[in-house]
Amino acid sequence: MASFSDLYSNEKTKGLDSNFGVDFVINYKIPQADRANAEAGFVQLIEALTHVGLTTEVRRGDKQSVLVFIKIADKFLDDQVYRSRLQDWLQGVRTTSSDKDLSQALRDEPVSDAERLRLVYLLIVKPKNEGGASITPQSGRWKHVDSIFPLHNHAFNKQWIKRVSTKGQTDETDLDEIRDKFGESVAFYFAFMHTYFKFLTVPAAAGFAAWVLLGQFSWLYALVSCLWSVVFFEFWKKKEVDLAVQWGVRGVSKIQHPRPQFEFERQAEDPVTGESVKIYSPIKRLQTQLLQIPFAAACILVLGTLIVTCNSLEIFINEVYNGPFQSYLAFLPTVILVVMTPTFSTVLTKFATRLTEMENYETIDAHHAALVQKEFVLNFLTSYMALFFTTFVYLPFGDRLTPYLDFWRSTAQKITPKDVSFQTQEFVVNPDRISKQMFYFTVTAQVVNFATEVIVPYVKRQVFEEVREVQSKISKEGDAAHIKDHPEEAAFLERVRKEADLETYDVTGDYREMVIQFGYLSLFSVAWPLAACCFLINNWVEMRSDAVKIAISSRRPIPWRADSIGPWLNALGFLSWLGSITSASIVFLCSSSGKGSGPHGAPGSIQAWGLLLSVLLAEHFYFAAQFVVRLVMTKLESPGLQKEKKERFMMKKRLLEENLGQGVSDQAATPGIEKTEMITLKTLEEEARRLSTQGHGGAEEAFWLRQRGMGEVIQIGRNLISQSVSGNSTKA
Amino acid sequence: MASFSDLYSNEKTKGLDSNFGVDFVINYKIPQADRANAEAGFVQLIEALTHVGLTTEVRRGDKQSVLVFIKIADKFLDDQVYRSRLQDWLQGVRTTSSDKDLSQALRDEPVSDAERLRLVYLLIVKPKNEGGASITPQSGRWKHVDSIFPLHNHAFNKQWIKRVSTKGQTDETDLDEIRDKFGESVAFYFAFMHTYFKFLTVPAAAGFAAWVLLGQFSWLYALVSCLWSVVFFEFWKKKEVDLAVQWGVRGVSKIQHPRPQFEFERQAEDPVTGESVKIYSPIKRLQTQLLQIPFAAACILVLGTLIVTCNSLEIFINEVYNGPFQSYLAFLPTVILVVMTPTFSTVLTKFATRLTEMENYETIDAHHAALVQKEFVLNFLTSYMALFFTTFVYLPFGDRLTPYLDFWRSTAQKITPKDVSFQTQEFVVNPDRISKQMFYFTVTAQVVNFATEVIVPYVKRQVFEEVREVQSKISKEGDAAHIKDHPEEAAFLERVRKEADLETYDVTGDYREMVIQFGYLSLFSVAWPLAACCFLINNWVEMRSDAVKIAISSRRPIPWRADSIGPWLNALGFLSWLGSITSASIVFLCSSSGKGSGPHGAPGSIQAWGLLLSVLLAEHFYFAAQFVVRLVMTKLESPGLQKEKKERFMMKKRLLEENLGQGVSDQAATPGIEKTEMITLKTLEEEARRLSTQGHGGAEEAFWLRQRGMGEVIQIGRNLISQSVSGNSTKA
Repeated sequence: MASFSDLYSNEKTKGLDSNFGVDFVINYKIPQADRANAEAGFVQLIEALTHVGLTTEVRRGDKQSVLVFIKIADKFLDDQVYRSRLQDWLQGVRTTSSDKDLSQALRDEPVSDAERLRLVYLLIVKPKNEGGASITPQSGRWKHVDSIFPLHNHAFNKQWIKRVSTKGQTDETDLDEIRDKFGESVAFYFAFMHTYFKFLTVPAAAGFAAWVLLGQFSWLYALVSCLWSVVFFEFWKKKEVDLAVQWGVRGVSKIQHPRPQFEFERQAEDPVTGESVKIYSPIKRLQTQLLQIPFAAACILVLGTLIVTCNSLEIFINEVYNGPFQSYLAFLPTVILVVMTPTFSTVLTKFATRLTEMENYETIDAHHAALVQKEFVLNFLTSYMALFFTTFVYLPFGDRLTPYLDFWRSTAQKITPKDVSFQTQEFVVNPDRISKQMFYFTVTAQVVNFATEVIVPYVKRQVFEEVREVQSKISKEGDAAHIKDHPEEAAFLERVRKEADLETYDVTGDYREMVIQFGYLSLFSVAWPLAACCFLINNWVEMRSDAVKIAISSRRPIPWRADSIGPWLNALGFLSWLGSITSASIVFLCSSSGKGSGPHGAPGSIQAWGLLLSVLLAEHFYFAAQFVVRLVMTKLESPGLQKEKKERFMMKKRLLEENLGQGVSDQAATPGIEKTEMITLKTLEEEARRLSTQGHGGAEEAFWLRQRGMGEVIQIGRNLISQSVSGNSTKA
Repeated sequence: MASFSDLYSNEKTKGLDSNFGVDFVINYKIPQADRANAEAGFVQLIEALTHVGLTTEVRRGDKQSVLVFIKIADKFLDDQVYRSRLQDWLQGVRTTSSDKDLSQALRDEPVSDAERLRLVYLLIVKPKNEGGASITPQSGRWKHVDSIFPLHNHAFNKQWIKRVSTKGQTDETDLDEIRDKFGESVAFYFAFMHTYFKFLTVPAAAGFAAWVLLGQFSWLYALVSCLWSVVFFEFWKKKEVDLAVQWGVRGVSKIQHPRPQFEFERQAEDPVTGESVKIYSPIKRLQTQLLQIPFAAACILVLGTLIVTCNSLEIFINEVYNGPFQSYLAFLPTVILVVMTPTFSTVLTKFATRLTEMENYETIDAHHAALVQKEFVLNFLTSYMALFFTTFVYLPFGDRLTPYLDFWRSTAQKITPKDVSFQTQEFVVNPDRISKQMFYFTVTAQVVNFATEVIVPYVKRQVFEEVREVQSKISKEGDAAHIKDHPEEAAFLERVRKEADLETYDVTGDYREMVIQFGYLSLFSVAWPLAACCFLINNWVEMRSDAVKIAISSRRPIPWRADSIGPWLNALGFLSWLGSITSASIVFLCSSSGKGSGPHGAPGSIQAWGLLLSVLLAEHFYFAAQFVVRLVMTKLESPGLQKEKKERFMMKKRLLEENLGQGVSDQAATPGIEKTEMITLKTLEEEARRLSTQGHGGAEEAFWLRQRGMGEVIQIGRNLISQSVSGNSTKA
C-alpha cells in the first residue's frame, strides 16, 4: 500500500517502481462454497481473454482469490488504436485527416497511457459481436470476477502529489498530464475544480466586503452573487468546449458504449450507418419514467417529514422549552437527523437505482445521467430542505408556528413525570437561525466531510492492514504448504494485492460535492456572505485531498473519455436560476422581518406583493444577465473552436489540392480574378460568331447579334443617350 | 405589364412567352442635367460588364433611360457554378463529395434558375478583387444605374398563380419550385406562411370554442394559446433546419456577402482560412450601438405620447363628452393617429437606417439584421402600444384617469364658444374597449392593409399606364425621329420597360406583417378569441395575394439564399414569451374588473399580489412548456439532419474505401471480430518465445514467462484454486 510516507521517501520503495508491463489485473474470487463453479469460470475467463488476443499470467491473490494479470501484445495494440481512431474520425470526433496519409497519420500519433488502458478495458468488456471478451464483472456468468482494474503508475502519482502539495495552482500542463494518465473524465473534474476555485475568489471577496460593510441580507451582495453565478456558468460552458477540442474529444459523448444489461424488443437498421441496432420502445420507457413523479413525491414526503419534524423539535427545545435537561435535549434532533437521513437516503437511492434499471437505457451514459438526475433530487432535498424550511416557513410565518409547537409541548408533558416542573418561554422568531444553519453547512459539515472522505478511510486501512498481517502470520504458522511468491515478484505482488483491496474511485461523488456546494453559495449565501470564503479554503484542501484519494486510497480508475461534465451542467444551471429566486426572497423576508420594526410593521405581516415583486425582478435580472453574458460570450472567439474550424478547413483544402491541383483549390478558397481575365472580348465575339453561324434563326439569336462586341454596344448606347436627351429637349 | 387577365388568358400573350435568353437587365437613367457624366458612366458600365465576361446589348428604355441586357456565356456559367459549389463545400455547406469525383459531382448537378441568376448577379455586384464588376446601383460612381433586375419567367408565374388560386394548400413540390425560381429566401417565407397557416387552425378552433363557451378573458384559452405559441415556435425552429438541409443551404448564413459601404480600420489575417480580412473595432461599433438606447427611448416618447394623447382624447370624446358634434368629433383622434403615426414612423425609420449605417457592419446580413431589429422596435410600438395602454393603464386605473381627462374637458371648454352648451357624463371604465380595439386591429386594419398592398398599387399602375400611353402618343406625334423597336422585339421590349417600372419586392415587409400578426395573437387574443379565425381567413387571402404581388406587381426578386427566417425568429420567440405575461395580466385585470363586483370588490381596487402571482405563474408555465416541448423535439428524429448525417458518414466511408480498401473501411465502421480471431494462441506463444530469446533478463520478462500459453495458465490457476480452498479448509 502506497501510504503518504512511501510517496515522499526518496529511497526506492519496493514493488512501486515498476508495473511489470501489466495492463490490467482481474481479481477472481473463489468462494469456498462454490469452488467447482469458480474453477470452471476461471478456465472460461482465461480462454475468453486469450481469444481476444490478451496474454495472461495467474498468481495467488488473497486467501479466497487468484489474480489474473493481463497484457496486450504491442502489435495488436497498434491495430486496436488505429481502428478506434478511424472510428472517431468516421463519427466526426477527429478532424485530422488527409486522404492518402490518413492511415499513417493515425498510426503516427503517440498512444497515451489513458488511451492504451481504455482500449484494453474495452477489449475485455465489449460484447463478443464487437470483438471483445464480453466479461462483465460481478454479474451473470462472471459473478466471480470481483474487479478488473489497471495498476497505478506510482512514479507519476508520487510526482503529482508532490506537485499539487507544493504548487499553488493546477495549470494546463498538469491537466494534460492528468488526462494522459487517468483519462478525460477525471481530467474534466480537475479542470472544473480549477476554474471553480479561481472564480470563487470573486464571491469570497464580495462576501467578505458585504459582511464587513453591509451585514447579512444585502441586496447588493445578492445581485453580485447572481451575476457571478451567471458568468461562471456561461464561462464554464465555453471552457468545456475548448478543453474538449484541445483534448480531441469533442463529440465523444455521441459515441456511446452499449449497456450490457439493456434488453431490446426488436432490431432495426440505423438510418445513418446502416448497422443493425437494438430498439426498446420509447413509449414504454416514458411510462416507466413517469414513475419518477411518485418517486420524487415520496422523497419529498419522507425526507421532508423528517427534516420538518426535527427542525420544529429543535425550535421547540431551543427556543421554547425551558425545562430540565434542556442542554442535553438540544442534541436530540441533530442525533435523529444524523442517524435517520443517511438511512432514508440509502433506501431511496436503492429505489432510484432500481427505477433507473427499469427504465432500461441503451447506453451507459444515458443510464448514468438518469441515475445522477434522481440522486440529485435526493441530494437537493437532504442538503437544502432545512434551509428552505427556515427561509420560507420559519422566518415569514414563525409567529404562526406556535400552535404547531404546542404539539411538542403536549407530547413533552405526556412523557415527563408529573412531579417534574416543566417550563416554556414565549416563542420569538430568530432571524439569525438561517445564518447559524449556513455556518453549520459550510464549516462543520465540510470538516466532517473531509474527515469521512480522507481520514477515516486512511485509519481504517491502517487498522485492517495490521489485523491482516497478524492473521497471515498466524495462518502461515499453521499452514506450511502455503505457496511462496517468487522473490523478485514478491514486493510487486504484495502491492497488487493491496491495490485490489482499495475502493473504486467514482468521479460522480466529487462532482456532487462541488455542485451541492455551488448550490449553497447560489441559493443561501446571502444569509451568510462569508460562505464563499469558507468554500475557498475548503476547496484548496479538497483539490489536494482528491488527488491523494485517487492516487493512494483508490484503485486506478478506468480512463474513460468525456467531452463535458455531463449531467452536472444542467444541475449547475438549475441551481444558478433558483438562486436568483431564493436570494431575492431571503433579502426581502429577512431584511424586513429582521429589523422587526421595518416599513412593513411587525414581523409576520409581510406583504405578499412585495415578495412577489422581488422574486419577479430578481428572476428577470437573472434572465437579462444571462442574455447579455451569452451575447458577449458568442462574440468572443473560442480558441478551441477556431482551431477545430481551421483544421477542418485545411483538411478540405489539402484534399482539394491533392485531387484537383494547386490552382483550383486556391481559386475555390479565395475566388480569384485570374480566370475571368482570360475571358476577353475575343471569347465573347467568338461566342457571338458561333451563335450566328449555327443560325437556327429566331428572334432570340437576332436580339443578341444586333450589337457585336463591346464597341458596338457602346456606340449604339451613346446614340440612344443623345437621342433620348434631344428628344426630351425638343419636347421641353 | 402582366395583369390578371394576361395570366389567365389562354392565347399566347405577346412578349411574355420568352425572355430572349436575358439574365439581367440594367435600367440606366440619363438625367437631362447630367448627360455627359451619364454617358461616360455608361461606357464604363459596358466595359466593366464585358471585362467580367458578360455579353451585353443596349436598347431604348423609357424617355430618360436606356436598358442594358446582360447574358452570361454558358461555358463561363459552368465555371462560376463549379467554383461557387466548391466554395460551399469548403465552408461546410455541402456534404456531397468524394475525392476523385468531386469535380464531376459538382458539375453534374443541374443548375436551377435561382442559382444561375444569383451567380450572375454576384458577378455584377461583387467587388473587383473577388472577380466581380463591382457595380453598386444608385451609389457613387454608379449613381445612374437605377436598378439591376432579372426578368420574370411568365410561363412559370402563370402556372403558379393558377395553382395557388385553385389548390387549397401549398405543398412541398410547390415550395421546391418557388425555391428554384425565386431562391431560398422567398421560398422560406412561403414555407413559413404555409406552416403558420396550418398551425393557425388550432387557436382558431380554440378561440371559436372559447368565444362560444367561455366568453372573453378565459384563462383556459390563455393557457391553450400560450402552449400553442410555444409548440409553434419550437416546431418551426426544427422545420427550418429540415428545409435548409433539404435545399442544401444549411450553414449558408455563415457565408456572408461583404457590404460595399463597409469602412475598415485595418487588415488582419483570418484565423481559419488565412485570407486577409478587413477589421473594424468592435468597441467603436459597440459605442455606436449604445445609441440604440436613446433611440428606443425617443421612439417610446414620440410614439407613446402620440398614442396616449389620441387614446385619452378618444376616451374623453366617446365616454365623457356629450356635447355637440360628438359623432363627428369621435373621428378626430383616429384621423390624428392615421395621419401622424406614418409621419413619425417614417422619420424614426430614417433615423434607424442612419444609425445602422453608422454601426458599419461588415456584411449585408449583419446590417440587415440590425436594421430589422430597430424597425421591429418601431413596429412593436406602433402596433401594440394602444393595446398596452388599454390593458395596463385604462383597465386597472381607469377610474383614476378622471383628473387627466379634465385636461381635455377644460381644453374643450376653452375652444368651444361660450354660448354653446357643453355636457359631460360620468366616466365609467368600459372593459369591452380592448375587444373593440382588437377587432379594429384584426379586421379593419387587415382589410385596409390588403387594399393598400394589392388593390391600390394595381389601380395606380393602371392609371399611370393610361397616362403614359396618352403621353407617349402625344410625344410620338411631336417627335417623328423617335427610334422604333425592331418589330420582333417590340412586344418583348415593351414588357421589359414595364417590368423596369415595377416596385422592388422585399420579403422583409411580408415577414413583418406575419410576425406582427403573431404578436396580436400571442399578446392580446385572450381579449378577443376570434382573432385567430380572422387571421386564418386573412392569411388564406394573403398567401395568394403575396404570390400575385411577386409575380405581377413587382420586379423579379434577386434569388438570394437563406437557411432560416433570420432575425424574425428572435422576434417570434420574444413575442411568444411576452404573450404569456400579457395574457395572464389581461385575464386577471379584466375578468376581475370586468365583473365589477368580483371577489376583489370594486374595479380599480385590484390586488397587486394577485396580478404579480398571475404573471409569475403564467411565465413559469411558459418556461415549463418550453422545456418540455424542446425535450420532446430533441427526441424526435429530424429527417433533414438525419439525411445530412448519413451523407457525411457515407462520404467518409467512401473516402476510406477508395484509399484503404474495402476491408479496412468495413472494419472501421463496424468493429469486426475477424482480425482478432487471427491472433491465435500460436501468435501469443511466438511473442513469448521472442521475448525469451531476446533475453535482456530482468524481473519483467521472467514474470511473463512463468506460464507459457493458455494451457499452463489454466493449469497453474486450477492448482492455486484448489490450494487456496484446501488451505482454507485446513484452517477451518
